[in-house]
Amino acid sequence: MPRMTRDEARRCFAGARVARLATVDPEGRPHLVPMVFARHGEDGIVTAVDRKPKSSPRLKRLRNVAVTPAVSLLVDVYDEDWERLWWARADGGARTVWPDAADEQDRDARRTALALLARKYPQYRDVPPDGPVVLITVHRWSGWRASGEPRTTG
Amino acid sequence: MPRMTRDEARRCFAGARVARLATVDPEGRPHLVPMVFARHGEDGIVTAVDRKPKSSPRLKRLRNVAVTPAVSLLVDVYDEDWERLWWARADGGARTVWPDAADEQDRDARRTALALLARKYPQYRDVPPDGPVVLITVHRWSGWRASGEPRTTG
Repeated sequence: MPRMTRDEARRCFAGARVARLATVDPEGRPHLVPMVFARHGEDGIVTAVDRKPKSSPRLKRLRNVAVTPAVSLLVDVYDEDWERLWWARADGGARTVWPDAADEQDRDARRTALALLARKYPQYRDVPPDGPVVLITVHRWSGWRASGEPRTTG
Repeated sequence: MPRMTRDEARRCFAGARVARLATVDPEGRPHLVPMVFARHGEDGIVTAVDRKPKSSPRLKRLRNVAVTPAVSLLVDVYDEDWERLWWARADGGARTVWPDAADEQDRDARRTALALLARKYPQYRDVPPDGPVVLITVHRWSGWRASGEPRTTG
């Protein structure tokens, strides 16, 4: 049951179409949602909040990272042949950038994130997300595979 | 983008072959691993720790729930047709039961958990997990689907 190297985990993670985002709420409880994402450079991960009714941009994941920036993201592949199981994890820190951010660099970072997401997901080209983006800096890549070479999804 | 009812989330969750378990470490950071699981009754979820070298039963997920029992579990299905996306989440509390638990009821609960897991996963019939089990009581079932009826995995 070998651990993946950092590079292997990074590569397997980046190849996936969906990841799960864990944050921690102000009461110290974990919170989980799936998310589509794009990699930005070596250790960046970006995700966006879709168009939502007015109330929704105050999503729990955003409230959580405002208080506790630590996040964990997981990609995994299940197979009934357990020799083919693998997962890759990214642990890091997150911050939210809103469309009306005062800082010009932040607004640039948001535009870059949206461009990376649109490049990866054709779905975003038709309907670009108009909410905030979440920028994640990965401090640690890790992963595991039952045996052999991991297969990437999609 | 409808929310699932509690019963719908419970049903979709139970039908999945793999879930992701989020715990919180003593420093307040989230931790994520995939897990196979079985449902136990209405609001119970059980999972086990596989055979491991001697040092490994002190897994991070077990250390975490010993300090912070709050856990979040997620099942999700990705599809390039985003109208087919759905996820179901179970939030609750976890405790670990070791094979040598002093309490007879605990040892019974562990045997029940292993039986439920073996019923769901033929893989466990050949090689039953010999480590501790984690018993989760779900306090809240929730879920979301883009539209229409969710498709269960596997």
